Amino acid sequence: MADQIRIGIAGHGNLGRGVEAAISKNPDMKLVGIYTRRAPETISPLQTGTPVFSMADLAGHTDQIDVLILCGGSKDDLPKQGPELAALFNTVDSFDTHARIPEYFAAVDAPALVNRKTALISVGWDPGLFSINRAMGEALLPDGATYTFWGDGLSQGHSDAVRRVPGVADGVQYTRPVQQAVEQVRSASRPVLTTREKHRRECFIVLQEGADAEAVRTAIVTMPHYFDEYDTTVNFITADELRRDHQAMPHGGFVIRSGNTSAANAQVVEYSLKLDSNPEFTSSVLVAYARATHRLQQMGQYGAKTVFDVAPGLLSPKSAAELRAELL
Amino acid sequence: MADQIRIGIAGHGNLGRGVEAAISKNPDMKLVGIYTRRAPETISPLQTGTPVFSMADLAGHTDQIDVLILCGGSKDDLPKQGPELAALFNTVDSFDTHARIPEYFAAVDAPALVNRKTALISVGWDPGLFSINRAMGEALLPDGATYTFWGDGLSQGHSDAVRRVPGVADGVQYTRPVQQAVEQVRSASRPVLTTREKHRRECFIVLQEGADAEAVRTAIVTMPHYFDEYDTTVNFITADELRRDHQAMPHGGFVIRSGNTSAANAQVVEYSLKLDSNPEFTSSVLVAYARATHRLQQMGQYGAKTVFDVAPGLLSPKSAAELRAELL
Repeated sequence: MADQIRIGIAGHGNLGRGVEAAISKNPDMKLVGIYTRRAPETISPLQTGTPVFSMADLAGHTDQIDVLILCGGSKDDLPKQGPELAALFNTVDSFDTHARIPEYFAAVDAPALVNRKTALISVGWDPGLFSINRAMGEALLPDGATYTFWGDGLSQGHSDAVRRVPGVADGVQYTRPVQQAVEQVRSASRPVLTTREKHRRECFIVLQEGADAEAVRTAIVTMPHYFDEYDTTVNFITADELRRDHQAMPHGGFVIRSGNTSAANAQVVEYSLKLDSNPEFTSSVLVAYARATHRLQQMGQYGAKTVFDVAPGLLSPKSAAELRAELL
Repeated sequence: MADQIRIGIAGHGNLGRGVEAAISKNPDMKLVGIYTRRAPETISPLQTGTPVFSMADLAGHTDQIDVLILCGGSKDDLPKQGPELAALFNTVDSFDTHARIPEYFAAVDAPALVNRKTALISVGWDPGLFSINRAMGEALLPDGATYTFWGDGLSQGHSDAVRRVPGVADGVQYTRPVQQAVEQVRSASRPVLTTREKHRRECFIVLQEGADAEAVRTAIVTMPHYFDEYDTTVNFITADELRRDHQAMPHGGFVIRSGNTSAANAQVVEYSLKLDSNPEFTSSVLVAYARATHRLQQMGQYGAKTVFDVAPGLLSPKSAAELRAELL
C-alpha cells in the first residue's frame, strides 16, 4: 500500500506484542521497528523480519516513524518516556493512573505543542472506551447516574499485591462484579452502592513451603485499599494448578448510564466488554487510535489529546463518504 | 446563565415535545422558540411562556437562534426543510432513511458551506449512536463481525403498514430480537444469520367490524419487505386493550462486535439501549448533539456533518480539563 502509516513500538512486553498482532490485522499500517531497553537480539518479533532496535536508536529514527506506540508501564516508564518521546514523535500511550492524568497530560502537552506533534494519552478501555461512554452517558441523559463495573477479570495490580504478601509463592486475583448490583442498575432504579456491594475479589494462591495459610488469608483480606473494603475469597492451589488454569488474562466490564428523560420514562444505556485477553484488546485499541493520531497531526491538531478529542470516524480506515454510505 | 446556547425547535410532534423536555434538563441551553406549520395558538408548550411561532417566521429570526433542531419526518419534511434551513441556521436533524443519507448529506452540505453554517444530519440512536458503535467496532477489531439487533420495541413504520391493511381498524407492531441468535453472537462464534433468524415480529390488531380475521392475518404475514421474511405473530385485541396496553413507545436494541485479536483470543464489544420512550431518547440525543453543533460552528467546521465527525468531548457541558480530571 502506497501510503501505509509507519508505526514504531516502544517497549516489548504483553502490550507491545499485542500491538504487533494488531498491526498485522490493519493493512493500512506497517510496523517499521520494535524499540527495547533489553538487548535487541534477545527479542523475537511475531513476524520474522521486523527490525528490532535499542531504545537509544529512537532519536535517530524520527523521519521513519509516523506514530510511535508507547507500550511501557504507567508507574515507572511513561512518566519519563511520554514527555521525552512526545517531543520527537506523534505518540499513543495507555497511561492509566487515573488520579495523575491531568499532571501527565500537561507534561506531554508542552513538548508536543512546541514540536508540532500529536500525543494521544490514556488510550485503552479504561481509561479509554469506558471513559467515552461515561462522558456520553452524562451528556445524553443529564438526569441520571453512571455505574462502572469491572470483571470478571484478572487484575494485574491486585495480583501483584497478593504476590507481595509474606508466605505467598505465587498467585492471581480476579475482580468480579456483584450480579445483584448489576441487575439493580440495569433496572434503572439508580441504587446507591458501596464499594463492597459492587465488586467482590477472588484470589488463587500458591503458598510457600511451610507458610501459614490462615495468616496469609488474613493478611490478604485485611490489606488496606486493595482488599479491606471488599468481600474477598482466598483459594489455595498448587503451582501446577496455577500454571494450568490461570495463565490467561481475561477481563471486561460495563459502563451503565440510567436516566430519565421525563418523570414517566427511564432509559438505560450499557456498554460492555468481554475480553479473552486484556492486553491484546488494549493493544488493538491503541493501534486504531494510532490511525487517528496520524490524522490529527496531519490536520494540525498538535499537543496532548485524549479519547474525548477523537471523532469516531478518525478511527476507521474508511473515508467519511464510505462510513456514511455503509455504516450510518 | 450568561452564554446559554439558544435553541429553536422546528416541528412539534413527538420529537419536538421530547426536545422541549430535554432542554429543560440542560441548564446551558435555552429554548427560544417553537416553530410550527399549524396555527401557533393551537400548540401547548411544555413550559408556559415558551414562544410559539409560525414556520414562516423562521427566516426573520436568524440572529436569535444558535442551533435549530429539525423535528420533522424523514419522508416528507426533512428532504425539503433540511437544505432550506441549513442555509439560514446551524441545524441538527434525525434524517433516518439509511439508503438516502449520501444524497441528503450532499443536499444539506452545499447551502451550509456557502453560508458558514454547520448542519449535523442523521442524529439519534440508529442512525446515530448505533452507527458510532458499528464504525468503532470495525476499527477496534478489524478481524470480526458486526451484528445490529433492534427491539424489543414498537416499530413506527411497521405499525403504519399494518394499519393500512384492509379490515384493520387500528394496531401496533413490535420487533423482537431472537434470543437464541443474540446468545450465539455474544458467544463470539460469528454466526451467519438470516433475516428470519435475527428478529421476529408481533402485531396487536383491532379489527374493523365484520372483518375476516384470517384474511387480515394472511395479508399481514405475507406483506412483502415488511413481514414476509420474518416469523410474525398476529394477536387480535379490542380497541380498549390497545388503548390500555399499547400506548407507550418502548424500543432499544444492541450493536455487537465480536472479533479475534489472535487465533486464541476472541473479544466481544456490546452497546445496548433499553428505552421506555423511543422519541424522548432520540430527542435527548438531538439536544446533546446540538451542543456539539454549536461548538463545531464556532470552530469553523462548516457544512454537513454526521456523528462520525463529532468528538465525544464536544457533547458534554464540561470543559476538556474537567472531563480529563473527572471522567477519563
